[in-house]
Amino acid sequence: MTSAPRSKLPVAILGATGTVGQKFIRLLADHPWFEIAALTASPESAGKRYADAARWREPMAVPDRIAAMTVQPSDAPLDVAVAFSALDARAAGPIEPAWAKAGVAVVTNASPQRMDPVVPLIVPEVNHGHLALIERQRQEKGWPGAIVANPNCTTAGLVLALAPLHRAFGIDRLFVSTMQAISGAGWPGVASLDIVGNVIPFISGEEEKVEQETRKILDAPAIRSSVHTNRVPVDDGHTETVSVGFGRRVSVDEAREAIRSWRVDPEVADLPSTPALPLEIDDRPDRPQPKLDRERGGGMTVTVGRLRGCPILDLRFVVLSHGESAGPPARRQNAELLVRTGRVGR
Amino acid sequence: MTSAPRSKLPVAILGATGTVGQKFIRLLADHPWFEIAALTASPESAGKRYADAARWREPMAVPDRIAAMTVQPSDAPLDVAVAFSALDARAAGPIEPAWAKAGVAVVTNASPQRMDPVVPLIVPEVNHGHLALIERQRQEKGWPGAIVANPNCTTAGLVLALAPLHRAFGIDRLFVSTMQAISGAGWPGVASLDIVGNVIPFISGEEEKVEQETRKILDAPAIRSSVHTNRVPVDDGHTETVSVGFGRRVSVDEAREAIRSWRVDPEVADLPSTPALPLEIDDRPDRPQPKLDRERGGGMTVTVGRLRGCPILDLRFVVLSHGESAGPPARRQNAELLVRTGRVGR
Amino acid sequence: MTSAPRSKLPVAILGATGTVGQKFIRLLADHPWFEIAALTASPESAGKRYADAARWREPMAVPDRIAAMTVQPSDAPLDVAVAFSALDARAAGPIEPAWAKAGVAVVTNASPQRMDPVVPLIVPEVNHGHLALIERQRQEKGWPGAIVANPNCTTAGLVLALAPLHRAFGIDRLFVSTMQAISGAGWPGVASLDIVGNVIPFISGEEEKVEQETRKILDAPAIRSSVHTNRVPVDDGHTETVSVGFGRRVSVDEAREAIRSWRVDPEVADLPSTPALPLEIDDRPDRPQPKLDRERGGGMTVTVGRLRGCPILDLRFVVLSHGESAGPPARRQNAELLVRTGRVGR
Amino acid sequence: MTSAPRSKLPVAILGATGTVGQKFIRLLADHPWFEIAALTASPESAGKRYADAARWREPMAVPDRIAAMTVQPSDAPLDVAVAFSALDARAAGPIEPAWAKAGVAVVTNASPQRMDPVVPLIVPEVNHGHLALIERQRQEKGWPGAIVANPNCTTAGLVLALAPLHRAFGIDRLFVSTMQAISGAGWPGVASLDIVGNVIPFISGEEEKVEQETRKILDAPAIRSSVHTNRVPVDDGHTETVSVGFGRRVSVDEAREAIRSWRVDPEVADLPSTPALPLEIDDRPDRPQPKLDRERGGGMTVTVGRLRGCPILDLRFVVLSHGESAGPPARRQNAELLVRTGRVGR
Repeated sequence: MTSAPRSKLPVAILGATGTVGQKFIRLLADHPWFEIAALTASPESAGKRYADAARWREPMAVPDRIAAMTVQPSDAPLDVAVAFSALDARAAGPIEPAWAKAGVAVVTNASPQRMDPVVPLIVPEVNHGHLALIERQRQEKGWPGAIVANPNCTTAGLVLALAPLHRAFGIDRLFVSTMQAISGAGWPGVASLDIVGNVIPFISGEEEKVEQETRKILDAPAIRSSVHTNRVPVDDGHTETVSVGFGRRVSVDEAREAIRSWRVDPEVADLPSTPALPLEIDDRPDRPQPKLDRERGGGMTVTVGRLRGCPILDLRFVVLSHGESAGPPARRQNAELLVRTGRVGR
Repeated sequence: MTSAPRSKLPVAILGATGTVGQKFIRLLADHPWFEIAALTASPESAGKRYADAARWREPMAVPDRIAAMTVQPSDAPLDVAVAFSALDARAAGPIEPAWAKAGVAVVTNASPQRMDPVVPLIVPEVNHGHLALIERQRQEKGWPGAIVANPNCTTAGLVLALAPLHRAFGIDRLFVSTMQAISGAGWPGVASLDIVGNVIPFISGEEEKVEQETRKILDAPAIRSSVHTNRVPVDDGHTETVSVGFGRRVSVDEAREAIRSWRVDPEVADLPSTPALPLEIDDRPDRPQPKLDRERGGGMTVTVGRLRGCPILDLRFVVLSHGESAGPPARRQNAELLVRTGRVGR
Repeated sequence: MTSAPRSKLPVAILGATGTVGQKFIRLLADHPWFEIAALTASPESAGKRYADAARWREPMAVPDRIAAMTVQPSDAPLDVAVAFSALDARAAGPIEPAWAKAGVAVVTNASPQRMDPVVPLIVPEVNHGHLALIERQRQEKGWPGAIVANPNCTTAGLVLALAPLHRAFGIDRLFVSTMQAISGAGWPGVASLDIVGNVIPFISGEEEKVEQETRKILDAPAIRSSVHTNRVPVDDGHTETVSVGFGRRVSVDEAREAIRSWRVDPEVADLPSTPALPLEIDDRPDRPQPKLDRERGGGMTVTVGRLRGCPILDLRFVVLSHGESAGPPARRQNAELLVRTGRVGR
Repeated sequence: MTSAPRSKLPVAILGATGTVGQKFIRLLADHPWFEIAALTASPESAGKRYADAARWREPMAVPDRIAAMTVQPSDAPLDVAVAFSALDARAAGPIEPAWAKAGVAVVTNASPQRMDPVVPLIVPEVNHGHLALIERQRQEKGWPGAIVANPNCTTAGLVLALAPLHRAFGIDRLFVSTMQAISGAGWPGVASLDIVGNVIPFISGEEEKVEQETRKILDAPAIRSSVHTNRVPVDDGHTETVSVGFGRRVSVDEAREAIRSWRVDPEVADLPSTPALPLEIDDRPDRPQPKLDRERGGGMTVTVGRLRGCPILDLRFVVLSHGESAGPPARRQNAELLVRTGRVGR
């Protein structure tokens, strides 16, 4: 295990003027390991002062140092250790590889990268070992840097809840019906006329993503899964009702014990962004709820509730994750993991 | 088949001052077969003018004739043909049997009656034939009148969607995850602090009700079902994601054809409250939605959407029902059915 | 007064594929006086079948005859009696005058026209006499046709409530604070992330519009007004808290009597779209409310409540209007008024 | 000025099992000056372990020490320095004076106390000097202890925004229209059916409270005020549109300067609960907004926005306050002020 870096590492935020980019600025403002050295955006914004280029929406004021920085173009890689990417899927396609080629470690959530077989798709608590895939990525692509992805927000919470059960008993069938927050669609995202007082029982491409990414992260290509994704008028917090089947009968007590005794590997537990308790069980009958439970562990803790038997598969329960935590905070944690495991090349 | 009554039948509304009672007044105001002859309430309200006893909340004004009527005590049965009960479970227990004993046909949604083995639990389009149970009820209880129940609002929409599939192919396994409107909990019901911007993944006793009532109505005691009920911040309209398994493989086309070709029996189709199309399929990818589809057929039509294969069971889809239509409108339709089948004793 | 037209008049809908255009199709589907003869849209949609060009969102299905019509380009005026414009402000600028020049009566809500001194800004119940301005418009512009506008949705409800008071007592000062529905911003309009669980205390340009349009419609250039407009998470229905001052003391009883005894002129009262009661007072302490009262008079009735004295000006009250009714329904009513007053030139 | 207490002072929470009482437990859990020594509740709960008596709803778990405490009856005063009262108005009437009589400093929000002429109604930043009224209270009532109240939540934010303007220029007229959060009504409070997608333009007794309490706190009995209070579907955060008139013309720049240069007296600024900046101006055109700005200063900072001239009075603006901060946090701050000014008698 490598220790924390001796001096702060210079990092860039790609797509820094949008809402996701702004979150990165807030999340990295006081980071013990990283220092924001560059902000990039599309050609229209490049050359402007950051304060003039961004329509700032975060609760805190723009830090003075950041406000005064000059925005750079996203497509010209800079000499930084890590690039936190807030680019949308279309821009990410050509730009992120260019930064990796220039030697930068790129942490991204862009969907084109997520299912690339040589891009590790990482939820550190669950599958940090998959980072080894970077060696193959470097060989195949010839990049001195790397691209590491984190999954879709709905998948992120789900796999954390499934991981202890899958390791202990081997999941073979999976039913999920989600109730996802509007924040998951970004801004402007869902039109208010469409969702206030309503449910939308469809999110384009989402069901396939949850199914595929879950298999990739859990390394479980044989899981048969049936996922139904819904949008509900909740600000933040994805709630999922889940049933799972195993190769053998598993009792509720065994399952509870597997979740309770599950421990995160030390190199992940030590990261600045890892919460003390990444996964909690709540036994109160009507929990978890987005409004009451999404902020646990600073929004990084996933809560499981209503653990009980399932008349069709073996076990059923409710999973709640913040949703937003699968966004920039997950990329921050992935960047920390890259540093901790000695994969950031400076 | 008996034709429509020659003159309007006198009816009573039990518990007429509450919100459900008020809905009965609106629904029966211009009914072709029924005339409101009596309004009852608890002892504190009895003796008052209706306009003084009720905190009226319906969109229309209280009809003058109703406003001037004197409220009677609920526990003293009157000489009417039908009693529309808006009593809560506790009051319904002793009071409804007293009216049945006095010769009145009582239509109710009270949970103590719903699972009584000699009380027919009726969704007319699905199981009107179960009314024959009244003969056994009369023998066993010695009532010249009768009690007929309609199911829980979540069950009502579900069984209408399941009926054609069950008749055609025989359902043996059933997965349901619901997103239920706040109107289902009545008034004051769910506190706004608990549900605005939130999901509550638990509704006390609801999952058991859906499972048991579905079996009773479909006459299918062997269905294995796993139901998860959730409350979401939607005014009206219950959305349910459903997966079903059959004894044999059923293709999506076969299922669609079974739903499309399903016809309601003529004695039910003719009732004043039966919509032209009790069950519709919508093939648009993001439908049905509560806000856009709950008012179909005057709120009495159930919509099925996203019909597709299920990787675990055989078939999956979304069901939307108004929710409110399973309340007073369902009891009105049951009362019409009782008249139409000659079971109202006047 | 001219009677109803002998045969249905052919009309066009400009911008027919968008959400407002779709509402026109629904509103005119069974109109006694008008028949949809043409649908127009931007060049990309022109030439397509309507069913292929529009992403239909209205609750009813597209009528077969409409679905099969070929979309025409908006900028080539056709031989119709009336054009119902759903064009946005930018397109309306050049296109609407072209249709008027071609002899068509154009009913519009486009902001560039609303404050043009020779375009009548009409709420029929309040100022139908302003239609006489068309003669000056025809002289000045040399159009055989005409353009007639209806006001901003917030103004529409407000002026209806103010009209009887202004006529009876002369308003000289006006305070308004609004709570406006999201439907007023159209679709996609307000992002759900911005308004779910939130208030936005600013709507760009809206306060000036309410102030100016109120003065123009009431013919009261000297009213001093202070308007604050807010967006709230309500689907439909604009609520406004209002205080008014007069040249002299006016008691609550006088004000109530002025509103109650106010009558709409017969040529307006008779129009198919005019509700039986365009303005109602509700004396219940907590009314009007959007959810309970917006549908009065088919959504065309404005409700005044909480009428009481104001410690600073003379009188204060709450006004509720549907909001949507100030959109397409208001233009439909204006078109009817043009026909009724013999101003449609066929 | 008295310094911080040498050892922690023992305090009681009256009505500790309800939702407000639970907030006190969270707020006082790690307080530098106070230690929870007693928890009281109604006779049914007295004698039970706290963990068994309360239906705990706060995000954190009940602290172990608290969970194990035995609940005492509220009506038997105990030997503590301060009593934080979460009693409802009815219970507060007889019980709070009993504790004051026993020598305890009672901090309360109970409406019967708020307008008692010898009970100081305190917002520390605005009128801490009013605490001197305690001497008269002690004389008149013969209490060795004292009762100190904080105002209604809507008033609390308003007076903070008005204070600098009133001191600088003297307010004589005041217009307010509020959009208040559901949290202001407590739990269960407003029924979800009544407020989801709705506005309720009336809150019983609220307008009078705002008018009277504002006059009392600002010591300005001559202000003429017109207040309209509305409930909107927002979780937390009261938004108010405000117009004020002064004895003389006041420009926007003068007003801005008065707010910007306003300083809290040192004995208040130093209290543990006083935020660094109790009052902020935000010049962005669409701010403040509840969702984006209510958490400023840990929820204790009030934000003023849209400062501009008023065509009728002199000045208008928007005020946002958290709402919840006027509850238990305000009483905590009042208790700190009592300690700091040497008025807690131990």
